[in-house]
Amino acid sequence: MKTLADAFEHTLKDIYYAENAITKALPKVIKKVSHKQLKEGLKEHLEETKDQIKKLDEVFKSLGKKPSGEKCDAIEGLIKETDSVLEEAEGDEALHAAVIGCCQAIEHYEIARYGTLREWADVLGKNKAHDLLTEILDQEKAANSKLTHMAVSSVNEAA
Amino acid sequence: MKTLADAFEHTLKDIYYAENAITKALPKVIKKVSHKQLKEGLKEHLEETKDQIKKLDEVFKSLGKKPSGEKCDAIEGLIKETDSVLEEAEGDEALHAAVIGCCQAIEHYEIARYGTLREWADVLGKNKAHDLLTEILDQEKAANSKLTHMAVSSVNEAA
Repeated sequence: MKTLADAFEHTLKDIYYAENAITKALPKVIKKVSHKQLKEGLKEHLEETKDQIKKLDEVFKSLGKKPSGEKCDAIEGLIKETDSVLEEAEGDEALHAAVIGCCQAIEHYEIARYGTLREWADVLGKNKAHDLLTEILDQEKAANSKLTHMAVSSVNEAA
Repeated sequence: MKTLADAFEHTLKDIYYAENAITKALPKVIKKVSHKQLKEGLKEHLEETKDQIKKLDEVFKSLGKKPSGEKCDAIEGLIKETDSVLEEAEGDEALHAAVIGCCQAIEHYEIARYGTLREWADVLGKNKAHDLLTEILDQEKAANSKLTHMAVSSVNEAA
């Protein structure tokens, strides 16, 4: 990894791995939570994540590269933390609040990564990649706002 | 972990562990980077992190608890990712851009966690904790903005 273009490709593979890991981790979370609004929201986000992977395929294609992932330690840690919450939470009150917290931590990771990637795409003059990454970034920000709203308006008040 | 109060204490211990881990990880990053503005910024952030740990001590005290950490898998993963960048980057261009990216991912993790914690403190009526956590949250947001500014204005343009 010598140039900004190398860092860009490396980070793109990292987030590609992360999105794929999220599609594998989310069904377990969805199964565990009973809070209706949260369950529906997570189901929607799972579909959105699958769609984002297709968008990332297009990003790779626009760069003339084959889509591939590279092990992302950060998402592994974030998912491990979420799994611990599923194991340790004994009541719905703590479970729902803590699950939303973990999902927001994951959203923030993605917001940080897509923010960096689309900035780099711009500097590197990769316009198509820039536009696709901006689309995904906006979706992640919207997903995070929905979680904040859910945390503030329902789960926390029920607690 | 049954109640929101349990989730709050658990997450507080998690971020306490994370901040302590950051104070151990940052000196290695500071040593490796040559970019003057970035080096100075990270040094300042290290001091700020030490100050935030003191603020967290006060949060624990306000709850009548002894400050203690609990292993946080997310920060372990985020730091592991940063360490990989230090190892894999061969030139300053990729190193500085990628280090800023990793630091922003860490800042975003903290922003997510403090955002959740201060919201929970509010719901639980822990006013002193709420105010201290809000102070730290604002510092993390400012640190992230500084990194964005650095990425956009200097490192990326030099690339």
